[in-house]
Parts: sequence; C-alpha cells; structure tokens
Amino acid sequence: MKNAHPHIIGYEETLEGREFFAAISPLDGQTLPGHFCNATETEINHAAQKAAIAAPAYRNATPEQRAAFLNDIVRLLEERTAEIIRICDLETALPETRLQGEMGRTCNQLRMFATQITDKTFLEEIHEEALPDRVPPRPDLLRKYIGIGPVVVFGASNFPLAFSVAGGDTASALAAGCPVIVKGHPLHPYTSQLVGNCIRDAAQNTDMPDGVFSLLHGKSNRVGQQLLAHPAIKAGAFTGSQNGGRALLQMVNQRHTPIPFFAEMGSVNPIVIMRDSLEKNYEELASGILNSCTLGVGQFCTNPGLVIIEKSAVQEQFLKLLHEIVCELKPGPMLSAEIANNYMAMKRAIASRHIVKIIGKAQSEGKYAEGVPCVMACRASDLLQAPEIAEEVFGPSTMIVLAEDKNEILQVLSVIGGQLTTTLFCEKENLPQHQDLLDKMAEIAGRVLYNSYPTGVEVGLAMQHGGPWPASTDSRFTSVGAQAIFRFLRPVVWQNFE
Amino acid sequence: MKNAHPHIIGYEETLEGREFFAAISPLDGQTLPGHFCNATETEINHAAQKAAIAAPAYRNATPEQRAAFLNDIVRLLEERTAEIIRICDLETALPETRLQGEMGRTCNQLRMFATQITDKTFLEEIHEEALPDRVPPRPDLLRKYIGIGPVVVFGASNFPLAFSVAGGDTASALAAGCPVIVKGHPLHPYTSQLVGNCIRDAAQNTDMPDGVFSLLHGKSNRVGQQLLAHPAIKAGAFTGSQNGGRALLQMVNQRHTPIPFFAEMGSVNPIVIMRDSLEKNYEELASGILNSCTLGVGQFCTNPGLVIIEKSAVQEQFLKLLHEIVCELKPGPMLSAEIANNYMAMKRAIASRHIVKIIGKAQSEGKYAEGVPCVMACRASDLLQAPEIAEEVFGPSTMIVLAEDKNEILQVLSVIGGQLTTTLFCEKENLPQHQDLLDKMAEIAGRVLYNSYPTGVEVGLAMQHGGPWPASTDSRFTSVGAQAIFRFLRPVVWQNFE
Repeated sequence: MKNAHPHIIGYEETLEGREFFAAISPLDGQTLPGHFCNATETEINHAAQKAAIAAPAYRNATPEQRAAFLNDIVRLLEERTAEIIRICDLETALPETRLQGEMGRTCNQLRMFATQITDKTFLEEIHEEALPDRVPPRPDLLRKYIGIGPVVVFGASNFPLAFSVAGGDTASALAAGCPVIVKGHPLHPYTSQLVGNCIRDAAQNTDMPDGVFSLLHGKSNRVGQQLLAHPAIKAGAFTGSQNGGRALLQMVNQRHTPIPFFAEMGSVNPIVIMRDSLEKNYEELASGILNSCTLGVGQFCTNPGLVIIEKSAVQEQFLKLLHEIVCELKPGPMLSAEIANNYMAMKRAIASRHIVKIIGKAQSEGKYAEGVPCVMACRASDLLQAPEIAEEVFGPSTMIVLAEDKNEILQVLSVIGGQLTTTLFCEKENLPQHQDLLDKMAEIAGRVLYNSYPTGVEVGLAMQHGGPWPASTDSRFTSVGAQAIFRFLRPVVWQNFE
Repeated sequence: MKNAHPHIIGYEETLEGREFFAAISPLDGQTLPGHFCNATETEINHAAQKAAIAAPAYRNATPEQRAAFLNDIVRLLEERTAEIIRICDLETALPETRLQGEMGRTCNQLRMFATQITDKTFLEEIHEEALPDRVPPRPDLLRKYIGIGPVVVFGASNFPLAFSVAGGDTASALAAGCPVIVKGHPLHPYTSQLVGNCIRDAAQNTDMPDGVFSLLHGKSNRVGQQLLAHPAIKAGAFTGSQNGGRALLQMVNQRHTPIPFFAEMGSVNPIVIMRDSLEKNYEELASGILNSCTLGVGQFCTNPGLVIIEKSAVQEQFLKLLHEIVCELKPGPMLSAEIANNYMAMKRAIASRHIVKIIGKAQSEGKYAEGVPCVMACRASDLLQAPEIAEEVFGPSTMIVLAEDKNEILQVLSVIGGQLTTTLFCEKENLPQHQDLLDKMAEIAGRVLYNSYPTGVEVGLAMQHGGPWPASTDSRFTSVGAQAIFRFLRPVVWQNFE
C-alpha cells in the first residue's frame, strides 16, 4: 500500500504484513493521512531475535555510553519537536500546550535516567571484602546490577509522548541496559513513528548495537501478545486499562519461562474529605476537585473518580456548588470515539442505578468523541452493598460518596481495591486523630496525599506510581520516577574476584 | 489421635483434621513418635484471617519492636537448641555438627535482620523537599517502605532450621513487618513444632499481635495450595524442587489477585575449568569438586552438578583421579527414602544414555535411604544435542562435560537455563581473555564465582541467591542475605505531609 509506514527493527525498516490501519482524528472521525500495518509474526520474531543479539553488548555498554544514547534521543526529540507535536495534535486532539509540556517531561525523564545511571550512589554496588581469618572465612563479594534482557513496552494512549515510544518505560529500560521493543499505540501511530525514528537515529549516532530498539505497529492485540510470548523477551511494561493489563498478564502467565510484567492500570484515586476541612474550605474544594477530575478530559491515571465526604453542615452547599460548577464546564475531545463511547456507556450504566444520583453535568452537548463532565453521588452505605459503582470510569466524571462517619469511610476504603493514590483533606491540628485513615490509605495505595490533588505526578527519586492490585501488577515497583529502572535490573554478585 | 501435635494459629492451638501423618527416620524407615495432621480448610482460613487482622498493627510496630521480637526468637531458639537438634537429627539424619552450624546460621540471620531494620541507611527513606518556587512547584515527597501483608512460607526439606520455620524467608518477612504463616515441611514436623513454639512464645513475650505467626502442618499439597489461594495472603516464599515451585506458581497465577511468589528451585551450578587451571591444579580440583558436590550428601541448592572442562593434556589424569577419589567415598543418609529413590532413579536414567559414561561411584553399597556418590561424564557436543542430561540430580553426583574449546563451553552455558551460581577456574593472568565467559555466566546466574566452590552461601548484605528461571521465579530478588527483605516490602510515598 502506498504511503504505508514501516516498522523499525533495529536499523532496518520492514513492512511485510497486509493488515493495514490508519489513525483517525478524534475531532471529526476523519482518517488521517498515512497507513500502518499490524506487525507479522515474522517481524515480531525478527525484532525479538535482534534484541536478544543486541542484549549482551548493550548490557556491557558503560553507563556513560548509555547516557550518551539517552541524551542524543533528547537532542533529536527537541530538534524535531515542532513536527512531532503537529502530528500528535492531529492524532490525539490534545492541546498544543499540553503536548509541549508532555514533550518537556519526556525529555526530562530521559535526562534524569542519563544522570542517575552515572551516579554511583543510585545504582549502588555493595562490596563486602574478604575476611579470611573469620570462621568460616568470608569471600570477597561484589554485588552489581545488570539489565534483565529485552523488554517489551506498550505505548499508552493517554500519554502519546511521556508514556509511549520514548516514554518512562522505554527510558528506564534503556537506562537499565535492556534492549526495548515498543508496541506502538494504534491511536497515534505517526507520532510513534517520528519518535521511533529519533531513538533509532540516536542509537546509530552513539554506536549502540543494532537491535537495541525496535518499534512495531499494531492495532491487533495479537502483536503485543506474540511479543510477550517470545522466549527472548525478559520483561514487559504496560500502561492502560484493567482489561488490557489483565489480558496481557494472563498471556505472560502462560509462558514457559515466567517474566516480570509491570502493568499500571489506573484507579479511582479516592479523596477523603473530613468534616473540618469541608466546612472550612468547601468552595475551594469544589473547584479544586472538579479541576483535578476533569484535567486532560479525565484521561489521566490519577484523576480522582471517588470523593468520600464526611457528613457535615455544608454538605448540601457543597453539592449545590459542584452542580453549579459542573454545569458551566465544557465538554472536551477525548482520545478516540471508542474511548468517548465507553465513557458515556459506563457513566450511563452507573447513573442508571437507583442508588446513584446525578449532581450535575456540563450543559453543552458533547460533539464527536467529546467527554461531558459529570458529577454523581451515592451514599456510602449503598456503595458498600454495590462496590461496582465505584469502578473506574475513564473520563471526566466523579462520584461523591456521602459517609455518615469515619467508620463508613474506612469501610469504603476497604472494599474498593488497590489504588495509585489516596488523598486526605483535614485541618492540620486534627491530622493526628486520623492515623487510622492514613494507615488504611497506605495499605491500599502507592501514594498518599494530604490536602492536595493527585493529578500531576512528580518525576523524581521519591515518586511511587503503582499500587496494590488492580492499580498495578506489582506494588513493589513504580512506573514513574527514577526507581522505575529497578523493574528491569537484577543483581549479580561476583565472588572471589578481588 | 493420642500424641498428635496441634497447629499453631496465632496464640491458639488447633487440631481439627483427621488426615494424620508421622515423621519417618531416614536411617531405617521407622516411624518416629508423635503424630501430625494436615491442616483443614477451616484452619487454613482461620490462620489467614488472623494474619490479615494482625497485619495493620504489625506493620505499624516500630523497627525496634520488630527487632525485639526477632531477638527474642533467637533467645528461645538458643535456650532450646539441645532439644531441637536432638529431634531434628532423628527426623533428618543430618549430623549434629551440621545442625549446630545450621542453628547458628538461623540465629545469625534473625539477628542480622533485627540489626538491619533499625539501620536507616538500609531501609532508606527518600525525602524530596518541596520546591514551591519551581515551575511547576514540587510538593514535599517522603518515600518509605511498608510490609506487603501476610506471607506464606514453605519450609524446605534440606534446611530444617535455616530455611524452614524460623529460616531466612520467615526472618525476612517478619523483619519487613509482614505476618507469616509457615507450611511446615512434612519430613521434619516435630522440629517445626518446637521452632514454631519459640516464635509463638517470642511473639507473646514481646507483645506482638495475635496472628503475626502461624504454623500449619501438612503432608498433602492441598495445604500449601489453599494457603496460597487465600485472598488475605499477599506474598509467598518457597525453597525446593522445580516441580514443586512450578506447581505452586501455577496456583498463584490462577489467583484473582496476583501476588509475588518467590520460589528458589535450585540448579546444577556449572563449574567451568579452563585448560591452564586444570593443567596446573587438577589434583586439587578433583578433590575440591568432589567435596563440594557431595557436601550434605549433595542436598544443597548450590552443589555443582555440572563441571565443564576445556580439553587439556591432563584430562585423562583428572578423570582417573576423580574415579579413584569417588570410589573411596562413603554413601550418606539422605533426607528421606523418597529423596534417595528419586536420586538413584534419575542418576540411573541419565547413566543409561549411551552418550554418558560412568567415571566412578562409591564402592560401598548404600544402606536404607543412602545416596551413593557418583561421577559421570559426557562430551559437550553430545550434551548440546541432549541438554536434558544436564538437569539437576538432587544428590551426590556430578557430570563432567568434556569440551573441545571455549566455543563449546559457551554453547553449553547457553542451553542449560538459569542458575543460582556459575564458576570459572582459570589462572589469574588469563582472566582478562575470558570476559566472554564471564558475561555469559552473569547472564544465566545470580552469583558468579572465581577459583572457588559454590557451596557455602555467605549470609550478608551483598549476597544474591536466586537467578534466572528456572533457578528462581524472579531473578531480581534473593532469598539469602539482607536484601531478601525487599521481596516483602513495598514503597509508599507521602506527599505534602511536611
């Protein structure tokens, strides 16, 4: 097919398949120029074999060499930013300012890993010197990290730059010394191609082994599944829906040789507002919550989808204010018509329950693939009987949960499953009374916030983005921040080499 | 049934089941006094529920409180050592000196974790202070570890003290702040009971929550399977055979909520001897290898079961010497008749292959449940065609692999799968020539040794005991040494609490 874009397999480009697809504008459903193709099994095997061949050489590249590679990716991304953002805006309908910010984050992440891996205090070596006179004698032991091997990264729809081809998963795996094969997200294939070209070019510029990076396109689930099933693949990383993550984990569990698979699958990120805080700040809280919940048209992993409020004198004013604000909000374009339709269908299903009340929704009609902001409410006692109404609705809606007392709040937190974040609002002087809430919040989440909003994830040394199932597959790891590299490293101890 | 020993569930004792079993002497097959019983599903649920209830309180115990608990276990184990070793010797036929040493290691492990968890540089907190003037502002972030929740530990047959009820898995999980339920190994149930009593008593002495520790007996696989399937269980740890580990991993993979399951399943721990080393030291090497391979009657995870030698002028002398030494060795009692029978059957199956030659075996006949030391040999080119002859034979035998050159050695290392250890013998001045071998050795193992033997695992900060599948389920973690605690910890970041 003319104008079809190839897959990138190491330094080669291929296009063998016949299952074509194209990107669709989320603004009007028009097919965008350029065609892409599901990678064939042969192409998948070829990419995996190349990664396996590249793995030993790349593992042995010095941290400085890998840092030069990462920094050259940044250089090329920055050089080509205008073109990448132009295409990305067409494919995702995300506003240019957002994409500029996301490109900044993408480059900062790559730079951060380049810096961290050359810092010996970060990837710490542990040396225990020989004690020949001890009984029994201790041998010399030197523990160092090495890359786990080729990693499959799944591009995320909602972060076409920062969690896609050159995003956090790719950056941390490449930093760890692991070849990466990206399965590009089919909602932004041309963006993926342009970013993939940067990585491929940077690999060549910095003399990285052929096969250290590949990009395979795929709209069919088969592509990702066959990649994860390949014996040369040693780890996987995914950001997306619970259904997607669960299905891929099942694939991984069927492998002959188990591998770590990190899936970050989002959550409802409950916010708990205690009486004192609500009574003092309900106006600020109403606008703050709606702002956080509709940020990015509700398509972040950390939008708060559940707001549990303790009974108070201002409850009705708070709900009234939420109504007023949400009615004035504008619908925004979601990433695709399918995502928008899923949002509307899930919201409608929940709102149809007699225990759920609609507090308000944006009055403007949503156009093609737009998400209409919406606030619903239910009683905590009803939610405890029907916890499925607290499931994540990917889009700009939130559920206010009316709790009689702290005991009901604790019960709600106990039934909603693992979360990326939990948040507590209360006055500072009363915080010591709520150790029980904080304990429960830490038990179910990877990040606990105080008097602030969960959207906006700092990319640094301390960040933990991940949490108990189903927020992620392994709460011991994070997909955001410097610690994300440890998903792809394993220690080897060298005995008696001194 | 009279004299039946109860399960320990928190501070309670129960005995509801009717499926009794007893320990058998490995010396003569006699039934030892005392009866034990497979835990019932009710008892399993009860233990899991108690662990879940104990989890929040125990997670919040200070490191100093947990250290006091671990140290009190040591105090009681030391107080009751004579009785424990007397019973353990009856149940396992392991020599008293070995058991004294193993008790020392068990106590040292518990003390090590008690020390480590109170050392802030070990369980490092990461604090990134707020940068309110940055664009965007950075919130205050404090990253700390908490226990993952209740852990199921499977007692190992071959380490009735150091990797059983109060062994490394239990010590690291309790240190991490996780309640532990031990499924006792049925080959040493009374030893398990005595050690379990120490932990239970120490928990009471140091005011730990009821349910922080339980010991369930079970000869049936059902007991461990039902434990691992229980929703309250958040992690599992196992040391044993590949078949056992694989079966339990399959169970874990069927859970609704995935949990980390660390299985250390042993390996053949290949030793590579280069020509220079063999020509210079073949006498030392012959005795050294046989000593390491028959240590503990070949029942350690780290006994070398594969010795790959590069062709040299002394090859025949080396094999002749191995023959002479092994013929003089004495058979030793294995842990059970079943283990001894499996050993003999596997050895016989491999030796019956026409590509395998028996170099020699101990001349004394083995008595009841004794393992007869044996040395076999094959050509590397034959092994490459039939890699199944390199599978682990749990017992005092080893396979000498005759390689034409380094290329064949590399090929053998490529087909034998993941290992706990790999070892290189060569002269120091030639070591730089063998970077290719060392790379391959690190690729397939968690510990790489130089001119020394893999048996004898140092328990310290630097140790890595685990390796790529099938040596263990997750090469990123270790079951021996201080880092073992990270299997059971997860980070939580506290945002904006300063």
